[in-house]
Parts: sequence; C-alpha cells; structure tokens
Amino acid sequence: MPDKVLDDISHRRYNPLTGSWLLVSPHRTKRPWQGQQEAPSKNKLPEYDPKCYLCPGNKRAQGDSNPQYQSTFAFVNDYSAVKEEQQEYNPEEVNKNDELASLLLQAQPVTGRCYVLTFSAKHHITLADMAAQEILPVIETWTRIYASHLSQSHPLRAQAAKVLDQIPPNPDGEVEPPKQSHQLRYMQIFENKGAAMGCSNPHPHCQIWTTSTLPEEPGKELAQMSKYRHDRGGRHLLEDYVKLEIEKKERVVFQNDAFLVVCPWWAVWPYEVLVIAKRHVRALVDLTDDERVQFAEAIQEVTRRYDNLFETSFPYSSGLHQAPLDCSEEEAETSWFHMHFYPPLLRSATVRKFLVGYEMMAEPQRDITPEQATLKLRDCGGELYRRSLE
Amino acid sequence: MPDKVLDDISHRRYNPLTGSWLLVSPHRTKRPWQGQQEAPSKNKLPEYDPKCYLCPGNKRAQGDSNPQYQSTFAFVNDYSAVKEEQQEYNPEEVNKNDELASLLLQAQPVTGRCYVLTFSAKHHITLADMAAQEILPVIETWTRIYASHLSQSHPLRAQAAKVLDQIPPNPDGEVEPPKQSHQLRYMQIFENKGAAMGCSNPHPHCQIWTTSTLPEEPGKELAQMSKYRHDRGGRHLLEDYVKLEIEKKERVVFQNDAFLVVCPWWAVWPYEVLVIAKRHVRALVDLTDDERVQFAEAIQEVTRRYDNLFETSFPYSSGLHQAPLDCSEEEAETSWFHMHFYPPLLRSATVRKFLVGYEMMAEPQRDITPEQATLKLRDCGGELYRRSLE
Ligand SMILES: O=P(O)(O)O[C@H]1O[C@H](CO)[C@@H](O)[C@H](O)[C@H]1O
Ligand SMILES: O=P(O)(O)O[C@H]1O[C@H](CO)[C@@H](O)[C@H](O)[C@H]1O
Repeated sequence: MPDKVLDDISHRRYNPLTGSWLLVSPHRTKRPWQGQQEAPSKNKLPEYDPKCYLCPGNKRAQGDSNPQYQSTFAFVNDYSAVKEEQQEYNPEEVNKNDELASLLLQAQPVTGRCYVLTFSAKHHITLADMAAQEILPVIETWTRIYASHLSQSHPLRAQAAKVLDQIPPNPDGEVEPPKQSHQLRYMQIFENKGAAMGCSNPHPHCQIWTTSTLPEEPGKELAQMSKYRHDRGGRHLLEDYVKLEIEKKERVVFQNDAFLVVCPWWAVWPYEVLVIAKRHVRALVDLTDDERVQFAEAIQEVTRRYDNLFETSFPYSSGLHQAPLDCSEEEAETSWFHMHFYPPLLRSATVRKFLVGYEMMAEPQRDITPEQATLKLRDCGGELYRRSLE
Repeated sequence: MPDKVLDDISHRRYNPLTGSWLLVSPHRTKRPWQGQQEAPSKNKLPEYDPKCYLCPGNKRAQGDSNPQYQSTFAFVNDYSAVKEEQQEYNPEEVNKNDELASLLLQAQPVTGRCYVLTFSAKHHITLADMAAQEILPVIETWTRIYASHLSQSHPLRAQAAKVLDQIPPNPDGEVEPPKQSHQLRYMQIFENKGAAMGCSNPHPHCQIWTTSTLPEEPGKELAQMSKYRHDRGGRHLLEDYVKLEIEKKERVVFQNDAFLVVCPWWAVWPYEVLVIAKRHVRALVDLTDDERVQFAEAIQEVTRRYDNLFETSFPYSSGLHQAPLDCSEEEAETSWFHMHFYPPLLRSATVRKFLVGYEMMAEPQRDITPEQATLKLRDCGGELYRRSLE
C-alpha cells in the first residue's frame, strides 16, 4: 500500500546500498520549465554508417579495422582511461618527508584496461529495438569477458570455467585479459546511451573498464552489504529488499522468475530503475542459461518501457555491479548481482532533470516519487512505439 | 614543485573533505570529441526583460510583483523544494510492525524554506561583469540572511547581532526567517549558472535553500573535518590545506590577504575551484568588512577567469559551506568557511565533461590534472574578454 503522505510532503529517503540520503519534493514538478531543452532523438540513422568506428569492417581511430562481425564485438578502447603499463609512482616515496602532504595530497597509481563492446552489427538500433534473444549474446559476451578476467585464486573460478565451457566463444574474436603482474581488482560494465549522457556514437555499445583498484561506488555497496549481513545474521540486503518489494508491490515495474525490476525506494533520477537477481547470484558467471535469458528479458522490458514513456530514444547510463575480479570468499559471498539504470529525462523527450547546484553542494533532490515513476513505467509495457510508426 | 609523473599516468586522488576517491586520466583529452555540443552563450540579452520574473517591477509566477530594487532582492521561491508546513509524517509509526521496512524503506520529513536572490537589477550581466564593489552587496545580503536565520542558542549569535548592526538592511526589503516551531538546521546558498547547469533564467541570481535537516555534503565535510581536528590535536583540515597549497604553489590560481583560490588536489570537474578563508572563519558572520571585500574580489577573479578561459559565459554551479544554522559549539568550531565552483566545460565553449556511466556507477573520472587546469586559469586573469569586444 503506497504511503499517501509521502506523495505530498517533502522528505528524505535513505539509500541503504550507499548509506546516503536524498531529498524528495513531490509537489515540485508543477513549476514551469524555461530552461535548456534536449534535442529530441532523430531516428533517421542508416543501418550501416561508413564513418562509424564501431560498424563492421570499418577503420578505427588508431588504424585497426573491425571484422565483419555478426552480433557483438569487443576491442581495447583506443582512448582508455587506464592503461596496463605506465611509469611507476610510489606515494610513500613522494610524500616521505612531508606529513601534511601525505594526508592532504594523497594519490595512488591505477592501471587496467578499457574495452568497447558493440551490442549489434547494426548502427541504427538500440537495446530497446532488440528482442530478448538478440540481447542474449550481449549478456553471453559480458559473461565470457568477466569469466576470463577473474584472478587465479578467485572463489568463482570454477564457476567461470564452467560457463566458458558452456557459452561458445564469439566467432568474430574475443578479448584476452592483460598479462600483467598484478591482478585487476574490478570490472565495471556500463553503457552511456544518448547524447544527453555524453555518448559520442549512437552505434549500440557499452564500455568495460577494468582497474587495479576497487572504485568508490561498488566499494561503498560492498561495505554496506557486508555490514547488513553482519547485523542481520547472514541475510543479504538485496535478498531482503527483493522480498520486501515483492510484498509491497508499489515499486515493482516488472518481474520474471529470476529478476525483479523496481524503481528503488531511494531512486535519485526521475525514472531510475534497479534490476535485481531474485536468488543469490554473485556475478554474471553464476547465472544459468535460463537466467541469462531472463536477464535479457528484464533489460528488454526496461529499455522498451523507457522509450515508450516519452516516445523517444530514452537516454540513460546503466551499469552492472557484481563480485570484484579479485576478491576473498567473503567479498564474493557478500556480492549480489544487480544492474542500475540512471536516466535523466523528467517530463518529456526534451525536458530533463538537472542534478546541479543543490544536488552537488548539499544533497540529491528529486521531483516525482519513485512510486509515481513506477506507475508510469508499468503503463507503457506495450509494443515499442516506433514499431507502429514504421 | 609539480610531481611530473602524475601528469602522465592514470591515478586516483583522495578528497579528504568528503573521504572519497576519484580517477585521473591525464592522457585522455587526446581523444576526438564527436558527442553533444553545448550551445555557445549568446550575449545579446537586454538590460531589462519585461518577461523575466526576476527583473525589477515585474510580476512573478504566483502573482507577486518585484519592487523596483536597485541591486539585490530576495524572495521566497514560488516553487520551493521544501515548505514550512506540511502533513505530519512519523517514520516510526509507519514502519512500526515491519522490521524490514524500517531498515530498507526509511524516510524522514523535511521542512524549510527556499529563497531566490538576485545579484543585480540588470538582466544581462553576470558576476563576471560585476566589479568587486558591485559583488559586495550580494555578500552582504547573504550575510544578513544567514545571520537572521541562526537558531536562538547558536554559538555565533553574538557575531550575527554585530553584523546585523554593521551591514545596513536592504532598502528594497528583506526576508524574515519562518516562524516555525522547530529550528532550521542548514542553509545552502548556491548558484546554477548557464543552461548547461539547469539554470532556467539568465537574470543573475542564486538560490538559498534552508532545511530542517543537515544535507549529505556539508554533513560529510563536517564529519571529515571533525575527525581531522581530533586526529591532529585541534588543527583544522582546511587550515593545513591552505598552508600546504601556499607552500606548494602549483594549484594556486589567485590569493589575497583573506582568501586562497585553488584548483583542489581532488577536483572532479575540469576547472573546479575552491575558495578558502585563510584564517578560521566559521561562517559569513565571522567575516570583517574588509574580508567581505576580499571575498567579493575572489569571486570576481574566479568568474572573470572562467569567462576568459574559453571566451564564453562559463556555466557552473557554486555553493557556500559554513556552520549550520543550528549547531553546537563544537560543530561551529569545526566549520571552516569555503566556496565550491563546479564548472562542466572541458575543452571549449561547446565541449563539456560528462560525469556519466563510469562516474555514476564506479567513481568520478577527470581528464586533465588540477595542476594543468591551474596553469590555464592563471593565464587568463586579464580584463574580461567581452570588454574589448564592446
Ligand atoms: O530551481 P531551478 O533553478 O528551477 O532548478 C535547478 O536547480 C535545482 C537545484 O539545484 C535543481 O533541483 C533543478 O533540477 C535545476 O533545474
Ligand atoms: O568514453 P566516452 O564514451 O568517449 O566518454 C563518455 O563516457 C566516459 C565514461 O563514463 C566519461 O568519462 C566521458 O566524460 C563521457 O563523455
């Protein structure tokens, strides 16, 4: 039962995954908007663009050519944010005789490797246009890349070997983990979709950044999940959250046997969505064949509903959180597979929510409640709107 | 002396004010940009716009009219994110018999009041166009509003009374604190400048949101500063940081007797800047007459340099952090007055940095080092570029 009072009053909600609060001001959407308008997405892209560096057969920035791939294709990012090899930097050495600097000017070197992964050979489509069966190869590729990058001593190593046996390799080639001395710690798989989310190429693709460090967000989540497990006699935060949301119903957008899709209680972005494994899946390699299909279905449901909501190609950033590439038994057990979607649009295809002054200086603020967002997303589950326009 | 290695390698830096890390990838600006371009700011605004709800004499959304004010004018936001009065909400009551919900569906009511404050009667100017003497009334108004909203028992109450005596009231009217039973906890003064930062009206103005709760960011900073003081025998984090940066020089953009302007070691935004009081100023009311002038000068230096950098009206969000409106002696003592500027532009008037997929899912990432940004900002201290175009 929705708590009606929260539909009307300003309040803060707590995000137990990160341990932080956000401000909710449900009445605030009434204000008129005279600010920046996003360019509505023009869906007039060709199936193949000879100038696109992601299309099959085309040349990339640094001179390599893409194969004539059929569905997915992964390669090392030509402008990676982290690299495998670089000059040494020893923080202790640098600030050795400077106590203040060692406290206030702290740095750590970061190495790793970044990949780009296309979702389809077709330049003009998006996940929303793809059937679950067409999204499945994307999930299989994610799984194989994750599996092949696990550390030697990883608790999921046996699981990884199993899925590498089960899922056939990509006939168009695969990426190999770097042969570096120190192990990669984390793999962040994420997609920036749409110009509003800083995406510079509409060809459907995601990025995979692997680093020698555990980044802030998954680090915070692991710490919070670990604390919860400890306080709650071994129960998982997301296990309990799934149970609670299925019971309450009011934030459930979609579910199948393996995944729950909710506008989380603590959503910051107007139509933010969380896709959560219903059982204890620690990472991609834990998913069964059938669960991968259901995950594909969940992604399809989210992206199609997004596009239907304002009848536009809905911009968002999405990302997977799962067990680190190098971790203890304890950390692997604490991990609970889930996927975040952070879409900026608020009122229409052209009016977005800005997380700016107050949000940056004080605390995130949202205008509609997650329960109101859920109702809208539930209501647009039909066929992809562009189908009937074709 | 700049540590040259960090100009070339990927690394993480630690932000001691918030206790979090960010990724720095200095080599990454080499990648070509084919993504969204910001509209360059057209500086063809009239001095008075009859349709602007902030111009003197004009009617506002809810029917009130602005006075024929001369410099600054403050009023209650017609679409406030928080309100003084609303229905009651008792979290304990709501989740009384539901242990999981009381852990995972936590909410707190928030009340308060939001103001809008114009910087000038002229529609077409910005802080960058204003001389320090013209910015001074803005600081005086901030100070009076802060002073008049302090709690009865506030440790800075005597200071507040003093400045309310010293700074003459605004002849065009002043805002009064709400007469509510419970005290306001925090006042966040912030400016969103430019369409890219969600600003919907170019008339120069800021917002002031007061809330019954302490928001996340100032809360985190206070906790970190308090821990530092405790660990370091009473020394202040920002006291030590000011000392260190003046010694190192390489991140100093500008300074006068009272304020230091640096691109902080831990800057996330490309040209992020921190304005820090050199002595222990706990809040606006601690500033002397002369320090207010110097603060105006620091703001002038930052905003003018910003505009000169890419010869455009530089978008940013800025905000003040200082002692809460209601706080203990201890919390007031821990506070150290400073101002953040978060500007999104990266390479030119039209190419911005997007903090999206990786940044949202994993960790903030920046492309140029703060030391590189400092050099550029140091180099554009001359006259405002538009002056010579007039
Ligand atoms: O209040 P404004 O200027 O209409 O709105 C702007 O600033 C607010 C506070 O940072 C944000 O919540 C809004 O998303 C933004 O558009
Ligand atoms: O790597 P891309 O797609 O060129 O770049 C985009 O995603 C990156 C990772 O979120 C961001 O750091 C960039 O600011 C953004 O423009």
